[in-house]
Amino acid sequence: MRERTCALIVVGNEILSGKVQDSNAYFAARELRKAGVALMRVVTIPDEIPIIAQEVASCAAHFDFVITSGGVGPTHDDLTMEGVAASFRRALVIDPELEAIIREHFKDGINKAGLKMAMVPEGAILNHGGDIRFPTVQIENVYVLPGIPQLFESKLAALRPRFATDPYFMRAIYTAATEGVIAEHLDACMAAFPDLMLGSYPRIGNPEYRVKLTLESKDADYLERAFRYLMGLLPSGMIVRTE
Amino acid sequence: MRERTCALIVVGNEILSGKVQDSNAYFAARELRKAGVALMRVVTIPDEIPIIAQEVASCAAHFDFVITSGGVGPTHDDLTMEGVAASFRRALVIDPELEAIIREHFKDGINKAGLKMAMVPEGAILNHGGDIRFPTVQIENVYVLPGIPQLFESKLAALRPRFATDPYFMRAIYTAATEGVIAEHLDACMAAFPDLMLGSYPRIGNPEYRVKLTLESKDADYLERAFRYLMGLLPSGMIVRTE
Repeated sequence: MRERTCALIVVGNEILSGKVQDSNAYFAARELRKAGVALMRVVTIPDEIPIIAQEVASCAAHFDFVITSGGVGPTHDDLTMEGVAASFRRALVIDPELEAIIREHFKDGINKAGLKMAMVPEGAILNHGGDIRFPTVQIENVYVLPGIPQLFESKLAALRPRFATDPYFMRAIYTAATEGVIAEHLDACMAAFPDLMLGSYPRIGNPEYRVKLTLESKDADYLERAFRYLMGLLPSGMIVRTE
Repeated sequence: MRERTCALIVVGNEILSGKVQDSNAYFAARELRKAGVALMRVVTIPDEIPIIAQEVASCAAHFDFVITSGGVGPTHDDLTMEGVAASFRRALVIDPELEAIIREHFKDGINKAGLKMAMVPEGAILNHGGDIRFPTVQIENVYVLPGIPQLFESKLAALRPRFATDPYFMRAIYTAATEGVIAEHLDACMAAFPDLMLGSYPRIGNPEYRVKLTLESKDADYLERAFRYLMGLLPSGMIVRTE
């Protein structure tokens, strides 16, 4: 089965201007990898409708699906829905189900800004699931998620079974040794487990560890055997921790 | 003076597959903002020459300058220089100055992999400066930086005076209050300091603070007066810390 491909579009001036550090890309990269999806592109762009529309159209055409993060709140600079609507040349309309959820949530306090959150591109699909109250809006192969990390994470976790095809399993070993010292052990491990995907990532100036090793396979048992084999080769004093 | 625009291209399969969390984008966003440069786009792409070449060509044409991060080490999957060379239709050649630095660094241990790091697109410029030993390679308006955070950060810091035009100044206030509670104080501050750029970023589930407020101006004195004004309005028990 061909691996499904995905792009993530992060919308937000606050990220480009360094006011807020994005954490959704890293979360999505790990979740999608676990689901066997190939994340091919992450793009951070400003809150501007033509730029959002162009990036969504390009990614939706090139990849199996697209996830957007951010720009879906009640304020005037939340423009992701308008950008997605423009990319598919659709009108923005009030969705009655979303309107009902928002009215119930805000009780009497509903205002025009709150109702903005019920506006979706015409023909959008609502995805329920997980422990989330507010469904995730989908237009064609584009899933529109909020930018607040806790909400983004719970919504992506709820969507994961839908994306999952042929998952990867991963273990990690953090070592206090340099790459030069452990190179021979990595070579021996690759010789014994040729199908293993083995990564080595040095981190200069980190007080905790020097090199992070990652072991990956689509076969959980094969991965565990390779992990134990490599752990047996590495001098135990070099191992800071494992995941 | 028109604000200069910039794009950052992060090259690395290890980031797209969730093995390593990128921190260079956040660092660059803050450094460029301080230098008065508008970061318009951050793209993370795989270690593949055609994709690197296409993204570099597109960004170099659309923005005043481009910074790349990663893919410049000695191993076979470090392909950024080849991608940049392809985007400008130039050959990759050995740079004698880089070769000398590498030979001195590795002494007798130099091998073909090490020499790969002396290969640059024909006609590249070497930028010295800061406390860095290895100069930064520049091709037209593209600056090629390493991905290891400590090296990326020192090289970008060394380049910053070159990029600086009309810098922004920023202060931040982390509050324990919700947006609803502080909204009136923000409105009052904006009324008193209409030229202030004021941002409010809620963070759900963070044990330290509920809302991060950012105050920005190109006038350092105006910023300080606005900061003190807003601090005077906010009940002191709400303030977790400031920057």
